[in-house]
Amino acid sequence: MIKVAFQGEPGAYSEAAVLEYFKNEAAPLPCESFDAVFEAVEKQKVSYGVIPIENSLAGSIHQNYDLLRQHNLHIVGEHFLRIQHCLIALPEAGLSDIRKVISHPQGLAQCDHNLRKLNHVKTEAVYDTAGAVKMLHDRGISTAAIASRRAAEVYHMQILIEGFEDNKANFTRFLVISPEAVNPGNNAKTSIVFALENKPGSLFKAMSVFALRDLDLTKIESRPLIGTPWDYLFYIDFIGSTEDPRVKKALDHLGEYSVMLRVLGSYPRYQF
Amino acid sequence: MIKVAFQGEPGAYSEAAVLEYFKNEAAPLPCESFDAVFEAVEKQKVSYGVIPIENSLAGSIHQNYDLLRQHNLHIVGEHFLRIQHCLIALPEAGLSDIRKVISHPQGLAQCDHNLRKLNHVKTEAVYDTAGAVKMLHDRGISTAAIASRRAAEVYHMQILIEGFEDNKANFTRFLVISPEAVNPGNNAKTSIVFALENKPGSLFKAMSVFALRDLDLTKIESRPLIGTPWDYLFYIDFIGSTEDPRVKKALDHLGEYSVMLRVLGSYPRYQF
Repeated sequence: MIKVAFQGEPGAYSEAAVLEYFKNEAAPLPCESFDAVFEAVEKQKVSYGVIPIENSLAGSIHQNYDLLRQHNLHIVGEHFLRIQHCLIALPEAGLSDIRKVISHPQGLAQCDHNLRKLNHVKTEAVYDTAGAVKMLHDRGISTAAIASRRAAEVYHMQILIEGFEDNKANFTRFLVISPEAVNPGNNAKTSIVFALENKPGSLFKAMSVFALRDLDLTKIESRPLIGTPWDYLFYIDFIGSTEDPRVKKALDHLGEYSVMLRVLGSYPRYQF
Repeated sequence: MIKVAFQGEPGAYSEAAVLEYFKNEAAPLPCESFDAVFEAVEKQKVSYGVIPIENSLAGSIHQNYDLLRQHNLHIVGEHFLRIQHCLIALPEAGLSDIRKVISHPQGLAQCDHNLRKLNHVKTEAVYDTAGAVKMLHDRGISTAAIASRRAAEVYHMQILIEGFEDNKANFTRFLVISPEAVNPGNNAKTSIVFALENKPGSLFKAMSVFALRDLDLTKIESRPLIGTPWDYLFYIDFIGSTEDPRVKKALDHLGEYSVMLRVLGSYPRYQF
Protein backbone atom coordinates (compact mmCIF):
# COMPACT_ATOMS: atom_id res chain seq x y z
CA MET A 1 0.00 0.00 0.00
CA ILE A 2 1.14 3.56 -0.82
CA LYS A 3 1.24 5.85 2.21
CA VAL A 4 -0.51 9.16 1.45
CA ALA A 5 -0.96 12.09 3.84
CA PHE A 6 -4.13 14.24 3.85
CA GLN A 7 -5.50 16.96 6.14
CA GLY A 8 -8.50 16.05 8.26
CA GLU A 9 -10.13 13.16 10.09
CA PRO A 10 -10.77 9.72 8.57
CA GLY A 11 -13.82 10.18 6.32
CA ALA A 12 -12.82 13.70 5.21
CA TYR A 13 -13.34 14.69 1.55
CA SER A 14 -9.54 14.81 1.20
CA GLU A 15 -9.42 11.13 2.18
CA ALA A 16 -12.03 10.34 -0.49
CA ALA A 17 -9.77 12.15 -3.00
CA VAL A 18 -6.81 9.99 -1.89
CA LEU A 19 -8.81 6.78 -2.35
CA GLU A 20 -10.23 7.80 -5.75
CA TYR A 21 -6.85 8.98 -7.09
CA PHE A 22 -4.86 5.95 -5.93
CA LYS A 23 -7.69 3.50 -6.77
CA ASN A 24 -7.83 2.05 -3.25
CA GLU A 25 -4.13 1.15 -3.28
CA ALA A 26 -3.43 3.91 -0.76
CA ALA A 27 -3.07 3.82 3.00
CA PRO A 28 -4.29 7.34 3.88
CA LEU A 29 -2.58 9.08 6.82
CA PRO A 30 -4.74 11.74 8.55
CA CYS A 31 -2.84 14.95 9.47
CA GLU A 32 -3.97 17.82 11.68
CA SER A 33 -3.01 20.65 9.32
CA PHE A 34 -1.82 21.36 5.76
CA ASP A 35 1.64 22.14 7.23
CA ALA A 36 1.70 18.65 8.70
CA VAL A 37 0.89 17.14 5.28
CA PHE A 38 3.82 18.98 3.67
CA GLU A 39 6.11 17.96 6.53
CA ALA A 40 5.11 14.29 6.26
CA VAL A 41 5.94 14.34 2.52
CA GLU A 42 9.18 16.27 2.98
CA LYS A 43 10.43 13.94 5.73
CA GLN A 44 9.35 10.96 3.59
CA LYS A 45 7.05 9.53 6.27
CA VAL A 46 4.67 9.09 3.32
CA SER A 47 5.17 8.74 -0.44
CA TYR A 48 2.66 11.44 -1.36
CA GLY A 49 0.47 14.18 0.04
CA VAL A 50 -2.95 15.19 -1.33
CA ILE A 51 -4.05 18.80 -0.77
CA PRO A 52 -7.12 20.74 -1.93
CA ILE A 53 -6.14 23.74 -4.12
CA GLU A 54 -9.46 25.19 -5.31
CA ASN A 55 -13.19 24.69 -4.96
CA SER A 56 -15.76 25.68 -7.56
CA LEU A 57 -17.76 27.64 -4.94
CA ALA A 58 -15.16 28.69 -2.37
CA GLY A 59 -12.20 29.62 -4.62
CA SER A 60 -8.45 29.01 -4.44
CA ILE A 61 -6.79 27.97 -1.21
CA HIS A 62 -3.93 30.49 -1.14
CA GLN A 63 -2.51 28.88 2.01
CA ASN A 64 -1.63 25.77 0.00
CA TYR A 65 -0.06 27.87 -2.77
CA ASP A 66 2.08 29.48 -0.05
CA LEU A 67 3.11 26.06 1.27
CA LEU A 68 3.96 24.93 -2.28
CA ARG A 69 6.25 27.97 -2.63
CA GLN A 70 7.84 27.41 0.79
CA HIS A 71 8.59 23.71 0.29
CA ASN A 72 10.76 22.10 -2.34
CA LEU A 73 8.18 19.52 -3.48
CA HIS A 74 6.68 18.76 -6.91
CA ILE A 75 3.09 18.50 -8.07
CA VAL A 76 2.86 15.03 -9.63
CA GLY A 77 -0.90 14.70 -10.17
CA GLU A 78 -4.32 16.32 -9.91
CA HIS A 79 -7.78 15.03 -9.07
CA PHE A 80 -11.27 16.55 -9.23
CA LEU A 81 -13.66 15.34 -6.54
CA ARG A 82 -17.37 16.07 -6.73
CA ILE A 83 -18.49 17.28 -3.30
CA GLN A 84 -21.70 15.41 -2.54
CA HIS A 85 -22.93 16.11 0.94
CA CYS A 86 -25.02 13.50 2.80
CA LEU A 87 -27.32 13.98 5.77
CA ILE A 88 -26.05 11.31 8.16
CA ALA A 89 -27.48 10.00 11.46
CA LEU A 90 -27.33 7.03 13.85
CA PRO A 91 -28.56 3.74 12.28
CA GLU A 92 -31.72 3.77 14.44
CA ALA A 93 -32.65 7.41 13.67
CA GLY A 94 -35.43 8.48 11.29
CA LEU A 95 -35.63 11.80 9.45
CA SER A 96 -38.48 12.92 11.77
CA ASP A 97 -36.22 12.44 14.84
CA ILE A 98 -33.72 15.08 13.66
CA ARG A 99 -33.77 18.35 15.63
CA LYS A 100 -30.16 19.47 15.14
CA VAL A 101 -27.68 19.26 12.25
CA ILE A 102 -23.95 19.63 12.84
CA SER A 103 -21.11 20.17 10.33
CA HIS A 104 -18.25 22.45 9.30
CA PRO A 105 -19.72 25.95 8.67
CA GLN A 106 -19.03 25.54 4.92
CA GLY A 107 -20.93 22.22 4.91
CA LEU A 108 -23.89 23.89 6.64
CA ALA A 109 -23.75 26.88 4.27
CA GLN A 110 -23.64 24.66 1.16
CA CYS A 111 -26.84 22.87 2.28
CA ASP A 112 -28.62 25.99 3.55
CA HIS A 113 -31.69 25.75 1.28
CA ASN A 114 -32.18 22.03 1.90
CA LEU A 115 -31.75 22.54 5.65
CA ARG A 116 -34.58 25.10 5.62
CA LYS A 117 -36.89 22.48 4.11
CA LEU A 118 -36.48 20.32 7.23
CA ASN A 119 -38.88 21.53 9.91
CA HIS A 120 -37.67 22.90 13.24
CA VAL A 121 -34.07 21.92 12.76
CA LYS A 122 -31.26 23.90 14.39
CA THR A 123 -27.67 23.95 13.14
CA GLU A 124 -24.40 23.87 15.04
CA ALA A 125 -20.91 24.39 13.63
CA VAL A 126 -18.15 21.95 14.46
CA TYR A 127 -14.52 21.66 13.36
CA ASP A 128 -14.90 19.47 10.29
CA THR A 129 -17.42 17.37 8.38
CA ALA A 130 -16.04 13.92 9.21
CA GLY A 131 -15.56 14.98 12.86
CA ALA A 132 -19.28 15.81 12.97
CA VAL A 133 -20.15 12.21 12.02
CA LYS A 134 -17.76 10.90 14.67
CA MET A 135 -19.68 12.92 17.29
CA LEU A 136 -23.08 11.39 16.49
CA HIS A 137 -22.61 8.49 18.95
CA ASP A 138 -22.48 10.97 21.85
CA ARG A 139 -25.24 13.20 20.49
CA GLY A 140 -28.02 10.61 20.11
CA ILE A 141 -30.76 10.08 17.51
CA SER A 142 -31.98 13.69 17.34
CA THR A 143 -28.71 14.93 15.79
CA ALA A 144 -27.60 14.52 12.17
CA ALA A 145 -24.34 15.50 10.46
CA ILE A 146 -23.51 16.81 6.98
CA ALA A 147 -20.50 14.99 5.53
CA SER A 148 -19.32 12.62 2.78
CA ARG A 149 -20.68 9.13 2.03
CA ARG A 150 -17.25 7.89 3.06
CA ALA A 151 -17.62 9.43 6.54
CA ALA A 152 -20.91 7.55 7.04
CA GLU A 153 -19.14 4.31 6.11
CA VAL A 154 -16.09 4.94 8.33
CA TYR A 155 -18.23 5.58 11.43
CA HIS A 156 -20.96 2.99 10.56
CA MET A 157 -23.73 5.55 10.34
CA GLN A 158 -26.87 5.79 8.25
CA ILE A 159 -27.31 8.10 5.24
CA LEU A 160 -30.74 9.74 5.58
CA ILE A 161 -30.44 11.92 2.45
CA GLU A 162 -27.83 11.73 -0.30
CA GLY A 163 -27.10 14.73 -2.57
CA PHE A 164 -28.07 17.14 0.22
CA GLU A 165 -25.94 19.98 -1.25
CA ASP A 166 -27.86 22.95 -2.75
CA ASN A 167 -25.54 23.34 -5.76
CA LYS A 168 -24.65 20.17 -7.66
CA ALA A 169 -21.73 21.87 -9.47
CA ASN A 170 -19.58 21.63 -6.35
CA PHE A 171 -16.11 20.28 -7.14
CA THR A 172 -12.79 20.46 -5.35
CA ARG A 173 -9.53 20.15 -7.26
CA PHE A 174 -6.80 18.34 -5.36
CA LEU A 175 -3.04 18.25 -6.07
CA VAL A 176 -0.78 15.27 -5.40
CA ILE A 177 2.64 16.31 -4.09
CA SER A 178 5.90 14.36 -3.84
CA PRO A 179 9.63 14.99 -3.23
CA GLU A 180 10.34 13.56 -6.73
CA ALA A 181 9.15 14.99 -10.04
CA VAL A 182 7.22 12.64 -12.34
CA ASN A 183 7.26 11.95 -16.08
CA PRO A 184 3.91 13.54 -16.96
CA GLY A 185 3.39 11.73 -20.28
CA ASN A 186 1.70 13.16 -23.37
CA ASN A 187 -1.34 14.81 -21.85
CA ALA A 188 0.38 16.99 -19.28
CA LYS A 189 -0.46 20.12 -17.35
CA THR A 190 2.09 22.46 -15.74
CA SER A 191 1.49 24.78 -12.79
CA ILE A 192 3.59 27.89 -12.21
CA VAL A 193 3.58 30.85 -9.84
CA PHE A 194 5.29 34.14 -10.70
CA ALA A 195 5.55 37.83 -9.87
CA LEU A 196 6.00 40.71 -12.32
CA GLU A 197 7.32 44.22 -12.11
CA ASN A 198 4.32 46.45 -11.48
CA LYS A 199 4.30 48.13 -14.92
CA PRO A 200 1.34 48.77 -17.23
CA GLY A 201 0.87 45.89 -19.65
CA SER A 202 3.22 43.50 -17.82
CA LEU A 203 0.59 40.77 -17.36
CA PHE A 204 -0.34 40.99 -21.05
CA LYS A 205 3.33 40.47 -21.97
CA ALA A 206 3.50 37.52 -19.55
CA MET A 207 0.45 35.93 -21.17
CA SER A 208 1.84 36.53 -24.66
CA VAL A 209 4.71 34.07 -23.98
CA PHE A 210 2.06 31.32 -23.92
CA ALA A 211 -0.22 32.67 -26.67
CA LEU A 212 2.71 33.18 -29.08
CA ARG A 213 3.50 29.47 -28.71
CA ASP A 214 -0.13 28.23 -28.84
CA LEU A 215 0.04 26.98 -25.25
CA ASP A 216 -3.45 26.84 -23.74
CA LEU A 217 -4.10 28.13 -20.23
CA THR A 218 -6.46 26.19 -17.97
CA LYS A 219 -6.17 28.59 -15.02
CA ILE A 220 -5.10 32.16 -14.42
CA GLU A 221 -5.43 34.03 -11.17
CA SER A 222 -3.95 37.21 -9.77
CA ARG A 223 -3.51 37.36 -6.03
CA PRO A 224 -2.96 40.74 -4.40
CA LEU A 225 -0.11 40.75 -1.91
CA ILE A 226 -0.64 43.78 0.27
CA GLY A 227 2.38 45.08 2.16
CA THR A 228 4.99 43.09 0.20
CA PRO A 229 7.58 44.15 -2.41
CA TRP A 230 5.45 42.39 -5.08
CA ASP A 231 2.00 43.77 -5.52
CA TYR A 232 0.64 40.58 -7.04
CA LEU A 233 1.39 36.92 -7.43
CA PHE A 234 0.05 35.15 -10.51
CA TYR A 235 -0.96 31.52 -10.74
CA ILE A 236 -1.08 29.94 -14.19
CA ASP A 237 -1.79 26.35 -15.25
CA PHE A 238 -1.28 25.44 -18.89
CA ILE A 239 -1.44 22.36 -21.11
CA GLY A 240 2.04 20.98 -21.76
CA SER A 241 5.05 19.67 -19.88
CA THR A 242 8.44 21.20 -19.05
CA GLU A 243 9.92 18.42 -21.26
CA ASP A 244 8.33 20.11 -24.31
CA PRO A 245 10.78 22.54 -26.05
CA ARG A 246 7.95 25.06 -26.65
CA VAL A 247 7.23 25.10 -22.91
CA LYS A 248 10.94 25.54 -22.11
CA LYS A 249 11.12 28.51 -24.48
CA ALA A 250 7.92 30.02 -23.05
CA LEU A 251 9.25 29.75 -19.49
CA ASP A 252 12.62 31.25 -20.54
CA HIS A 253 10.71 34.09 -22.17
CA LEU A 254 8.55 34.58 -19.05
CA GLY A 255 11.79 34.74 -17.05
CA GLU A 256 12.67 37.93 -18.97
CA TYR A 257 9.66 39.73 -17.47
CA SER A 258 9.18 38.12 -14.08
CA VAL A 259 10.91 39.05 -10.82
CA MET A 260 10.08 35.61 -9.38
CA LEU A 261 9.13 32.43 -11.25
CA ARG A 262 8.64 28.97 -9.80
CA VAL A 263 7.54 25.84 -11.67
CA LEU A 264 5.45 23.85 -9.20
CA GLY A 265 5.34 20.74 -11.39
CA SER A 266 4.31 19.04 -14.65
CA TYR A 267 1.87 16.18 -14.19
CA PRO A 268 -0.73 14.09 -16.07
CA ARG A 269 -3.89 16.08 -16.71
CA TYR A 270 -7.10 14.88 -15.04
CA GLN A 271 -9.54 13.24 -17.49
CA PHE A 272 -13.21 14.05 -16.90
CA MET B 1 -27.98 57.31 9.42
CA ILE B 2 -27.54 55.17 6.29
CA LYS B 3 -28.98 51.66 6.61
CA VAL B 4 -26.45 49.06 5.43
CA ALA B 5 -26.94 45.27 5.39
CA PHE B 6 -24.08 42.84 6.17
CA GLN B 7 -23.87 39.09 6.76
CA GLY B 8 -23.12 37.96 10.31
CA GLU B 9 -23.67 38.87 13.94
CA PRO B 10 -23.04 42.32 15.44
CA GLY B 11 -19.25 42.52 15.83
CA ALA B 12 -18.51 40.56 12.62
CA TYR B 13 -15.64 41.69 10.38
CA SER B 14 -18.24 42.65 7.77
CA GLU B 15 -19.77 45.07 10.28
CA ALA B 16 -16.33 46.61 10.87
CA ALA B 17 -16.06 47.07 7.08
CA VAL B 18 -19.46 48.85 7.05
CA LEU B 19 -18.40 51.23 9.83
CA GLU B 20 -15.00 51.99 8.28
CA TYR B 21 -16.43 52.56 4.80
CA PHE B 22 -19.34 54.77 5.88
CA LYS B 23 -17.24 56.57 8.55
CA ASN B 24 -19.66 55.72 11.37
CA GLU B 25 -22.61 57.29 9.56
CA ALA B 26 -24.08 53.83 8.96
CA ALA B 27 -26.71 51.88 10.86
CA PRO B 28 -25.54 48.29 10.14
CA LEU B 29 -28.25 45.65 9.71
CA PRO B 30 -27.12 42.08 10.52
CA CYS B 31 -28.37 39.42 8.05
CA GLU B 32 -28.25 35.63 8.36
CA SER B 33 -26.88 34.93 4.89
CA PHE B 34 -25.41 36.60 1.80
CA ASP B 35 -28.73 35.93 0.02
CA ALA B 36 -30.48 37.91 2.76
CA VAL B 37 -28.08 40.85 2.21
CA PHE B 38 -28.87 40.93 -1.53
CA GLU B 39 -32.60 40.65 -0.82
CA ALA B 40 -32.51 43.52 1.71
CA VAL B 41 -30.79 45.76 -0.89
CA GLU B 42 -33.07 44.68 -3.74
CA LYS B 43 -36.25 45.28 -1.70
CA GLN B 44 -34.77 48.61 -0.53
CA LYS B 45 -35.05 47.74 3.16
CA VAL B 46 -31.52 49.22 3.28
CA SER B 47 -29.64 51.72 1.09
CA TYR B 48 -26.57 49.51 0.63
CA GLY B 49 -25.18 46.06 1.24
CA VAL B 50 -21.54 45.26 2.05
CA ILE B 51 -20.23 41.81 1.04
CA PRO B 52 -16.77 40.20 1.21
CA ILE B 53 -15.49 39.27 -2.26
CA GLU B 54 -11.93 38.03 -1.67
CA ASN B 55 -9.45 37.40 1.13
CA SER B 56 -5.67 37.50 0.75
CA LEU B 57 -5.35 34.03 2.33
CA ALA B 58 -8.67 32.33 1.54
CA GLY B 59 -9.30 33.49 -2.06
CA SER B 60 -12.36 34.73 -3.95
CA ILE B 61 -15.85 34.12 -2.62
CA HIS B 62 -17.48 32.72 -5.76
CA GLN B 63 -20.85 32.54 -4.02
CA ASN B 64 -20.97 36.34 -3.93
CA TYR B 65 -19.95 36.57 -7.61
CA ASP B 66 -22.89 34.24 -8.35
CA LEU B 67 -25.24 36.46 -6.35
CA LEU B 68 -23.93 39.54 -8.21
CA ARG B 69 -24.76 37.82 -11.52
CA GLN B 70 -28.20 36.71 -10.31
CA HIS B 71 -29.30 40.12 -9.00
CA ASN B 72 -29.65 43.36 -10.88
CA LEU B 73 -27.58 45.48 -8.48
CA HIS B 74 -24.50 47.67 -9.00
CA ILE B 75 -21.15 47.72 -7.26
CA VAL B 76 -20.77 51.33 -6.04
CA GLY B 77 -17.69 51.04 -3.81
CA GLU B 78 -14.93 48.84 -2.44
CA HIS B 79 -13.14 48.62 0.90
CA PHE B 80 -10.08 46.72 2.12
CA LEU B 81 -10.22 45.65 5.77
CA ARG B 82 -7.14 44.36 7.56
CA ILE B 83 -8.16 41.21 9.46
CA GLN B 84 -6.63 41.57 12.92
CA HIS B 85 -7.70 38.78 15.21
CA CYS B 86 -7.88 39.36 18.98
CA LEU B 87 -7.89 36.78 21.77
CA ILE B 88 -10.93 37.85 23.78
CA ALA B 89 -12.19 36.74 27.23
CA LEU B 90 -14.46 37.80 30.10
CA PRO B 91 -13.30 41.03 31.84
CA GLU B 92 -12.25 39.08 34.98
CA ALA B 93 -10.26 36.41 33.08
CA GLY B 94 -6.46 36.26 32.91
CA LEU B 95 -4.42 34.60 30.18
CA SER B 96 -3.46 31.78 32.58
CA ASP B 97 -7.16 30.94 33.13
CA ILE B 98 -7.73 30.05 29.46
CA ARG B 99 -8.17 26.33 28.72
CA LYS B 100 -10.33 26.54 25.61
CA VAL B 101 -10.45 28.86 22.60
CA ILE B 102 -13.55 29.07 20.40
CA SER B 103 -13.99 30.69 16.96
CA HIS B 104 -14.99 30.08 13.35
CA PRO B 105 -12.70 27.31 11.96
CA GLN B 106 -11.00 29.89 9.70
CA GLY B 107 -10.30 32.13 12.72
CA LEU B 108 -8.78 29.16 14.57
CA ALA B 109 -6.73 28.12 11.51
CA GLN B 110 -5.40 31.67 10.98
CA CYS B 111 -4.08 31.75 14.58
CA ASP B 112 -2.82 28.16 14.65
CA HIS B 113 0.84 28.94 15.43
CA ASN B 114 -0.02 31.45 18.16
CA LEU B 115 -2.55 29.03 19.67
CA ARG B 116 0.17 26.37 19.98
CA LYS B 117 2.26 28.80 22.04
CA LEU B 118 -0.49 28.87 24.70
CA ASN B 119 -0.08 25.86 26.98
CA HIS B 120 -2.74 23.15 27.30
CA VAL B 121 -5.37 25.02 25.36
CA LYS B 122 -8.05 23.15 23.40
CA THR B 123 -9.96 24.63 20.47
CA GLU B 124 -13.61 24.36 19.51
CA ALA B 125 -15.25 25.50 16.29
CA VAL B 126 -18.39 27.63 16.40
CA TYR B 127 -20.49 29.28 13.69
CA ASP B 128 -18.79 32.67 13.47
CA THR B 129 -16.18 34.83 15.17
CA ALA B 130 -18.53 37.42 16.70
CA GLY B 131 -20.90 34.65 17.81
CA ALA B 132 -17.98 33.09 19.72
CA VAL B 133 -17.55 36.30 21.74
CA LYS B 134 -21.29 36.40 22.45
CA MET B 135 -21.01 32.88 23.95
CA LEU B 136 -18.30 33.80 26.48
CA HIS B 137 -20.85 34.86 29.15
CA ASP B 138 -22.18 31.29 29.28
CA ARG B 139 -18.77 29.63 29.01
CA GLY B 140 -17.02 31.29 31.98
CA ILE B 141 -13.47 32.55 32.54
CA SER B 142 -11.64 29.48 31.18
CA THR B 143 -12.84 30.09 27.60
CA ALA B 144 -11.53 32.69 25.16
CA ALA B 145 -12.71 33.61 21.65
CA ILE B 146 -10.87 34.70 18.49
CA ALA B 147 -12.64 37.63 16.84
CA SER B 148 -12.36 41.33 15.93
CA ARG B 149 -11.65 44.23 18.32
CA ARG B 150 -15.14 45.42 17.42
CA ALA B 151 -16.69 42.15 18.72
CA ALA B 152 -14.94 42.64 22.09
CA GLU B 153 -16.43 46.15 22.30
CA VAL B 154 -19.95 45.09 21.26
CA TYR B 155 -20.12 42.36 23.94
CA HIS B 156 -18.12 44.30 26.62
CA MET B 157 -15.31 41.77 26.78
CA GLN B 158 -11.60 42.03 27.44
CA ILE B 159 -8.89 41.78 24.77
CA LEU B 160 -6.16 39.51 26.16
CA ILE B 161 -3.95 39.60 23.04
CA GLU B 162 -4.24 41.88 20.02
CA GLY B 163 -2.72 40.92 16.65
CA PHE B 164 -3.18 37.21 17.43
CA GLU B 165 -3.22 36.25 13.69
CA ASP B 166 -0.17 34.30 12.42
CA ASN B 167 0.04 36.19 9.10
CA LYS B 168 -0.18 39.99 9.27
CA ALA B 169 -0.86 40.29 5.51
CA ASN B 170 -4.47 39.21 6.04
CA PHE B 171 -6.89 41.50 4.19
CA THR B 172 -10.45 41.10 3.03
CA ARG B 173 -11.80 43.13 0.12
CA PHE B 174 -15.45 44.12 0.47
CA LEU B 175 -17.83 45.43 -2.19
CA VAL B 176 -20.61 47.94 -1.58
CA ILE B 177 -23.77 47.15 -3.57
CA SER B 178 -26.81 49.28 -4.37
CA PRO B 179 -29.84 49.28 -6.71
CA GLU B 180 -28.53 52.54 -8.26
CA ALA B 181 -25.25 52.98 -10.14
CA VAL B 182 -22.92 55.72 -8.88
CA ASN B 183 -20.77 58.36 -10.59
CA PRO B 184 -17.35 56.85 -9.86
CA GLY B 185 -15.30 60.03 -10.36
CA ASN B 186 -11.78 60.25 -11.82
CA ASN B 187 -10.08 57.38 -9.99
CA ALA B 188 -12.47 54.58 -10.87
CA LYS B 189 -12.34 50.83 -11.04
CA THR B 190 -14.72 48.63 -13.06
CA SER B 191 -15.60 44.99 -12.34
CA ILE B 192 -16.81 42.65 -15.08
CA VAL B 193 -17.62 38.97 -15.42
CA PHE B 194 -17.63 37.21 -18.79
CA ALA B 195 -17.50 33.84 -20.56
CA LEU B 196 -15.67 33.03 -23.79
CA GLU B 197 -16.00 30.39 -26.46
CA ASN B 198 -13.64 27.59 -25.48
CA LYS B 199 -11.10 28.18 -28.28
CA PRO B 200 -7.31 28.30 -28.07
CA GLY B 201 -6.10 31.86 -27.50
CA SER B 202 -9.53 33.24 -26.63
CA LEU B 203 -8.46 34.57 -23.23
CA PHE B 204 -5.43 36.25 -24.78
CA LYS B 205 -7.73 38.01 -27.27
CA ALA B 206 -10.02 39.05 -24.42
CA MET B 207 -7.09 40.56 -22.53
CA SER B 208 -5.83 42.34 -25.63
CA VAL B 209 -8.95 44.55 -25.66
CA PHE B 210 -7.62 46.12 -22.46
CA ALA B 211 -3.89 46.07 -23.29
CA LEU B 212 -4.47 47.67 -26.72
CA ARG B 213 -6.13 50.60 -24.93
CA ASP B 214 -3.61 50.86 -22.06
CA LEU B 215 -6.25 49.87 -19.51
CA ASP B 216 -4.60 48.35 -16.42
CA LEU B 217 -6.02 45.23 -14.83
CA THR B 218 -6.08 44.97 -11.03
CA LYS B 219 -7.59 41.48 -10.94
CA ILE B 220 -7.97 38.53 -13.27
CA GLU B 221 -9.32 35.15 -12.31
CA SER B 222 -10.59 32.16 -14.24
CA ARG B 223 -13.21 30.06 -12.54
CA PRO B 224 -13.87 26.57 -13.87
CA LEU B 225 -17.57 25.82 -14.28
CA ILE B 226 -17.85 22.07 -14.45
CA GLY B 227 -21.01 20.68 -15.98
CA THR B 228 -22.19 23.93 -17.60
CA PRO B 229 -22.27 25.10 -21.24
CA TRP B 230 -19.41 27.53 -20.40
CA ASP B 231 -16.21 25.88 -19.26
CA TYR B 232 -14.97 28.98 -17.48
CA LEU B 233 -16.11 32.28 -16.12
CA PHE B 234 -13.59 35.13 -16.00
CA TYR B 235 -13.51 37.93 -13.46
CA ILE B 236 -11.62 41.09 -14.40
CA ASP B 237 -11.25 44.37 -12.53
CA PHE B 238 -9.58 47.27 -14.34
CA ILE B 239 -8.77 50.92 -13.74
CA GLY B 240 -11.28 53.17 -15.48
CA SER B 241 -15.00 53.84 -15.60
CA THR B 242 -17.71 52.91 -18.10
CA GLU B 243 -18.06 56.69 -18.68
CA ASP B 244 -14.59 56.68 -20.31
CA PRO B 245 -14.80 56.28 -24.13
CA ARG B 246 -11.74 53.97 -24.12
CA VAL B 247 -13.52 51.68 -21.65
CA LYS B 248 -16.69 51.71 -23.76
CA LYS B 249 -14.68 50.71 -26.84
CA ALA B 250 -12.84 47.98 -24.89
CA LEU B 251 -16.12 46.50 -23.62
CA ASP B 252 -17.66 46.66 -27.13
CA HIS B 253 -14.56 44.88 -28.42
CA LEU B 254 -14.78 42.25 -25.64
CA GLY B 255 -18.41 41.72 -26.65
CA GLU B 256 -17.17 40.46 -30.04
CA TYR B 257 -15.44 37.49 -28.34
CA SER B 258 -17.56 36.79 -25.29
CA VAL B 259 -20.66 34.62 -25.09
CA MET B 260 -21.70 36.38 -21.88
CA LEU B 261 -20.55 39.74 -20.54
CA ARG B 262 -21.86 41.58 -17.50
CA VAL B 263 -20.58 44.87 -16.10
CA LEU B 264 -21.01 44.61 -12.32
CA GLY B 265 -20.25 48.29 -11.72
CA SER B 266 -17.84 51.25 -11.92
CA TYR B 267 -16.93 52.72 -8.55
CA PRO B 268 -14.29 54.86 -6.80
CA ARG B 269 -11.08 52.92 -6.29
CA TYR B 270 -9.97 52.23 -2.71
CA GLN B 271 -6.99 54.38 -1.61
CA PHE B 272 -4.42 52.57 0.55
